Amino acid sequence: MPEPRRANSTERLAPKAVVGRVSLYLRQLEGLLRQGQATISSSQLGAALGINDAQVRKDLGFFGQFGHPGIGYRVAELTPALRRILGIDRPWPTAMIGLGNLGRALVKYRGFRNRGFHIVALFDKDPKKVGQNVAGLAVRALDDLPRATSELNLALAILCVPADAAQRVADQVVACGIMGVLNFAPVPITVPSSVSVMAVDLSIQLEHLAYKVQNTQGGVSYAG
Amino acid sequence: MPEPRRANSTERLAPKAVVGRVSLYLRQLEGLLRQGQATISSSQLGAALGINDAQVRKDLGFFGQFGHPGIGYRVAELTPALRRILGIDRPWPTAMIGLGNLGRALVKYRGFRNRGFHIVALFDKDPKKVGQNVAGLAVRALDDLPRATSELNLALAILCVPADAAQRVADQVVACGIMGVLNFAPVPITVPSSVSVMAVDLSIQLEHLAYKVQNTQGGVSYAG
Repeated sequence: MPEPRRANSTERLAPKAVVGRVSLYLRQLEGLLRQGQATISSSQLGAALGINDAQVRKDLGFFGQFGHPGIGYRVAELTPALRRILGIDRPWPTAMIGLGNLGRALVKYRGFRNRGFHIVALFDKDPKKVGQNVAGLAVRALDDLPRATSELNLALAILCVPADAAQRVADQVVACGIMGVLNFAPVPITVPSSVSVMAVDLSIQLEHLAYKVQNTQGGVSYAG
Repeated sequence: MPEPRRANSTERLAPKAVVGRVSLYLRQLEGLLRQGQATISSSQLGAALGINDAQVRKDLGFFGQFGHPGIGYRVAELTPALRRILGIDRPWPTAMIGLGNLGRALVKYRGFRNRGFHIVALFDKDPKKVGQNVAGLAVRALDDLPRATSELNLALAILCVPADAAQRVADQVVACGIMGVLNFAPVPITVPSSVSVMAVDLSIQLEHLAYKVQNTQGGVSYAG
């Protein structure tokens, strides 16, 4: 099997939905690996996720040629390949910025560490929070971000700051050389094209849910 | 201005990206309303979000005719119209299910209540958590969900349960007549077509960020 290719900056990134499904395939494969299953077909891989075999093959085909004729996918081979494609074959030292309720909870959220995202430094601009211990880490002053970034090799930052602080904090993050931002602030942020952003606006997700509920059969009967 | 139309179950829903942008336009308009600005053009409305005027007009055109020739949009008119379109012109009594770190934080997250999502009942299956007070609400046993749903008119549920419990809990939620689920469990759930789901898998978002960082200029230089 050839090495899965990594896109370089001149190639287009895979569509968001494809990358999201690769994460789901990987979770399936990790379960199979734990159970000791050696091979799986594309239809079996998609079945638990409600995705048909053609879609599975198309999604994986975006990144390389992984199937073996008459065998399907080898679980022990495809699993690390997908981890490499996603970039989670190594740890990502991550900063948490903003230690309000959401930031504190996410520091303790085991789902991040399990996937290689290690929150190794906490920052807040509130002097009352600086020095507090959250999940074994002392909260640092935001001014300490540049030094900590180089000392700890911080690669990603999770922003849990209020909307009116988001762009200013994002500018500081970018200035430090951090290359990826997971933005929980309820406002879009602008960064240079060399920096990646994923936005998670939880109230927008809930508004979208309200929209869907209101405009499906169940919702209309409720609204009425 | 005509009443904005609500889709019924036979019409197609607006694309996800459109609905997401309507949420962003609404936030802009709410700011303008507070500042006392009376009207705004499509290019001004999009500017702060990095969206061009044609896209703004197309997005809003999906839901009705809101602009006035030579005037633009009337802020005091468009704001409540978008709230009505999204379905947040009324409160949504919401259940939080699963009071781990993430669930507890989200109960305290002010962004939900501000948008009309009122978390009015908490549920956990762990007997040690039942009866605990979180943000002024006593945690209930999950068995209490059907009764609480009818008493409190629960319309939405936020699922913060582990992956292996997600489908079982989703089935219980659906059986109670709850019509919308915001799923934070790191696994897809299956529900009848009359029930709406929005999935927020935080570790998948971070994996996607890692993928983007790895495959942009900054990421390649880091990974190398």
